[in-house]
Amino acid sequence: MFTIREIANALGAEAAGALDLTVTHAAEPQDAKPDALAMAMAPKYADALALGSARAALLWDGADWQGMGLEAAIFATRPRLAMGGVTRMLDPGQGEQPGIHPSAVIDPTAQIGADVSIGPLCVVGPNARIGEGSLIGAHCFIGADVTIGAQAHLREMVSIGARVTIGDRFRAQPGARIASDGFSYVTPETSGVENARKTLGDQGETDAQSWVRIHSLGAVRIGNDVEIGANCTIDNGTIRDTVIGNGTKLDNQVHIGHNCRIGNDCLLCGQTGLSGSVDIGNNVVLGGQCGVADNLFVGDRVIAGGGTKILSNVPAGRVMMGYPAVKMDTHTEIYKAQRRLPRLMRELDALKKAVFK
Amino acid sequence: MFTIREIANALGAEAAGALDLTVTHAAEPQDAKPDALAMAMAPKYADALALGSARAALLWDGADWQGMGLEAAIFATRPRLAMGGVTRMLDPGQGEQPGIHPSAVIDPTAQIGADVSIGPLCVVGPNARIGEGSLIGAHCFIGADVTIGAQAHLREMVSIGARVTIGDRFRAQPGARIASDGFSYVTPETSGVENARKTLGDQGETDAQSWVRIHSLGAVRIGNDVEIGANCTIDNGTIRDTVIGNGTKLDNQVHIGHNCRIGNDCLLCGQTGLSGSVDIGNNVVLGGQCGVADNLFVGDRVIAGGGTKILSNVPAGRVMMGYPAVKMDTHTEIYKAQRRLPRLMRELDALKKAVFK
Amino acid sequence: MFTIREIANALGAEAAGALDLTVTHAAEPQDAKPDALAMAMAPKYADALALGSARAALLWDGADWQGMGLEAAIFATRPRLAMGGVTRMLDPGQGEQPGIHPSAVIDPTAQIGADVSIGPLCVVGPNARIGEGSLIGAHCFIGADVTIGAQAHLREMVSIGARVTIGDRFRAQPGARIASDGFSYVTPETSGVENARKTLGDQGETDAQSWVRIHSLGAVRIGNDVEIGANCTIDNGTIRDTVIGNGTKLDNQVHIGHNCRIGNDCLLCGQTGLSGSVDIGNNVVLGGQCGVADNLFVGDRVIAGGGTKILSNVPAGRVMMGYPAVKMDTHTEIYKAQRRLPRLMRELDALKKAVFK
Repeated sequence: MFTIREIANALGAEAAGALDLTVTHAAEPQDAKPDALAMAMAPKYADALALGSARAALLWDGADWQGMGLEAAIFATRPRLAMGGVTRMLDPGQGEQPGIHPSAVIDPTAQIGADVSIGPLCVVGPNARIGEGSLIGAHCFIGADVTIGAQAHLREMVSIGARVTIGDRFRAQPGARIASDGFSYVTPETSGVENARKTLGDQGETDAQSWVRIHSLGAVRIGNDVEIGANCTIDNGTIRDTVIGNGTKLDNQVHIGHNCRIGNDCLLCGQTGLSGSVDIGNNVVLGGQCGVADNLFVGDRVIAGGGTKILSNVPAGRVMMGYPAVKMDTHTEIYKAQRRLPRLMRELDALKKAVFK
Repeated sequence: MFTIREIANALGAEAAGALDLTVTHAAEPQDAKPDALAMAMAPKYADALALGSARAALLWDGADWQGMGLEAAIFATRPRLAMGGVTRMLDPGQGEQPGIHPSAVIDPTAQIGADVSIGPLCVVGPNARIGEGSLIGAHCFIGADVTIGAQAHLREMVSIGARVTIGDRFRAQPGARIASDGFSYVTPETSGVENARKTLGDQGETDAQSWVRIHSLGAVRIGNDVEIGANCTIDNGTIRDTVIGNGTKLDNQVHIGHNCRIGNDCLLCGQTGLSGSVDIGNNVVLGGQCGVADNLFVGDRVIAGGGTKILSNVPAGRVMMGYPAVKMDTHTEIYKAQRRLPRLMRELDALKKAVFK
Repeated sequence: MFTIREIANALGAEAAGALDLTVTHAAEPQDAKPDALAMAMAPKYADALALGSARAALLWDGADWQGMGLEAAIFATRPRLAMGGVTRMLDPGQGEQPGIHPSAVIDPTAQIGADVSIGPLCVVGPNARIGEGSLIGAHCFIGADVTIGAQAHLREMVSIGARVTIGDRFRAQPGARIASDGFSYVTPETSGVENARKTLGDQGETDAQSWVRIHSLGAVRIGNDVEIGANCTIDNGTIRDTVIGNGTKLDNQVHIGHNCRIGNDCLLCGQTGLSGSVDIGNNVVLGGQCGVADNLFVGDRVIAGGGTKILSNVPAGRVMMGYPAVKMDTHTEIYKAQRRLPRLMRELDALKKAVFK
């Protein structure tokens, strides 16, 4: 329960009206009960406010709160940023309990920091270290020699393999898999794939061969303020570690192959995948279901739209789209031309008739 | 073990021959032993029947069962529908045991209905409610304040986060993740992504920024008769719940972003993903590996072929294909024109030579 | 700790210098400490060697090891193959403990082979059989009547449903899901999807219908030397088993639908998905994020580049690319033509003007 004043102060935002009014949670305008803070940060939500019974709302800058019948209002100059602050304050959490649940299996050599909560049926391996103030959800697995910094928050069923190192304020969603073995195989003799890569399409004559496994001796190294989505998979490096930089966030079902290096403050959206040995710069944003082929370089500040498949290096600052990826404006041009293709075919036929007859 | 009569009655199907003959399981015709019901619902399977030793079969309508040497037959007018009935009767299950396994960690405030089976090493949180007749597989996690209706069937390692509500006859496959946090971030100042979206390709000049997290205050609300596939991920809503309607089925590794609303009786096939705030109507079918960009609307009865990436709103009743998605017949036309493109290039060159010399 | 001689012998490779020198682990050249074997299998790594302090290295054939200041060297004629041998020898493992952890829940009827390690909080169901020398990580679920051969290695949180049979030397990465139910539904009357498939785009007039479930009576059958990646999902067959042949390897987040049959020695890279009833030959390689539509056939030795969506049968030996998949050289030709499309449009306009005035 917070007063309007407390919320406005936390956001550094202007507020008006009954600043001592309290709210217990946030709600969409039409669903808001009298104890809710209605989220109505654009004029298009004004009508919906009338359908609910909010007494207070988070509004767009300059909104006529009194005209909308509210008793109090907070004004957001950058609405989504204000959402960040409000939702952090009002997050009800997952009901984690303090302390270490008696059903957890903790190796006696593990080092658990102060004020750490470990949920039921967790496993913490030998020499694992968990930083102070961390919340570890039920059914988590933290392997041997893993280091996790302070204030981590792991949801249920997260697994972290041996020798992983992670910075502070780490977040992992349910089912995130860190430190699976890399997918790395080789045939005894030259394979058809090796030939096809060289010739861009001809695999030549090769004998059928079985695959020899290359084991992963490296682990995964993750910076501070990283979040890993539900059911993501991050592979160990082959010789050195796979690396994820500070402030980078992965959405659900993202796959990071062995030896990848991802910079700082990147966003990788749902179901995106990086093959092995991909280098991603800083502040890169890859939309949902993107893919990057192995051994490529994606420069700082690159943005790729959803579904983009990157098959060659991308210089810094580019905005990309398509399969294979091209610059977004080129993609738009190609796409428009494609849609005109059937008509173009007919025009060409008319021209041929006119010219060659 | 069922008699042919019992199976035919359950299907509401015609049967002939020795109706008291019993079968213990179903088999493909060539593999069928004398105690199996052979599944041979089209004339193309007639020859395979001779390779096995079935005495009874589920056949196509009007099949000459005696000519095929069978002692009994059931006739299916709509074969796959008959498969539904037969497989439901003969499903051997996963060997779940009645009652609550002593290794499960059940909060004393949880309300467990009559005839509920809870497998080994499950965790059920405070105030969770599980409806009568439900089967909960091993290693499941059911969070605080979760409500699950009657006759649920959860396979192993399913996780359901706090405050989720689910209707009756819910099914979840192994590793399904319900109620992960939404993937929602904002930069303090305007970001390159915001610019690129406006300009469709130009991210302009922005400073490198870190991402501020928007927490998920909503949960997930699921109707009756819903099935969620293995390793799916369904995110919580930001303010309100993410919603999945009655009768909707998700295949494996489907991803549903925060705030999505999916209607009734939809099918979302394997590895399909919805970004945030997507509205899907009723009776929508999305093939495998489809994607829908954020904040879009997909109308009732829309069908999308495998791999379709929907990047703009789709009116009701459309059949879609491609990346970016277009109407399937347009896609076919474009695809044919594309395959003719290299030839068209040569023709154009010849024309230019002829006209401009 | 191994001597250079031991490693060279295990690889069947030439070595030179102080063969009794010992190394404890492998390292990239620039990171190598004196107790590391530096991996520098191409001339481009020569400079990096000088940045580290390796005394021994795995080098390219004919490298001047003494000129690089090394005390010992092993020479790799096929570098990645040598990586296979070296990494197998030096793999530090996950710290698994011998024996059955007391927190594991093992059914008394399960048959556990000699020298099997079962981690904390595992569940092993009735009549399950685990072959000798197997390592089962923490939190694994092995269902009723499952058979696993000798020398299996399951990482944490792997689940294997009832009645699955698996050969020797099986490997599964964290969160792999074997034997989820197939995704198979049917409507009581003809559906819009059935119509759209026949007409390639017209779903006709159908009533809204709910979906009837077809249960999976089959299981999954896996050969020898198979590896399944993290968070993969493999569905049970409907009547018979889904089948994966000897020596086939699946990367992370791969999805295999019900009734698929995959041959021997295939590689399926990250996030690839097969719909139901797909037949894949031997020695097939599908790059990352590939998809194969249902009921298709992909012949022996087919190679598909990343992101390829296979929508029709593919004869043996083809190298494929694109959506929809075409031969890779056709794809390259189409792609080049597409990039010229906008210019072509302008040329066509000029021609029209010249010809038709």
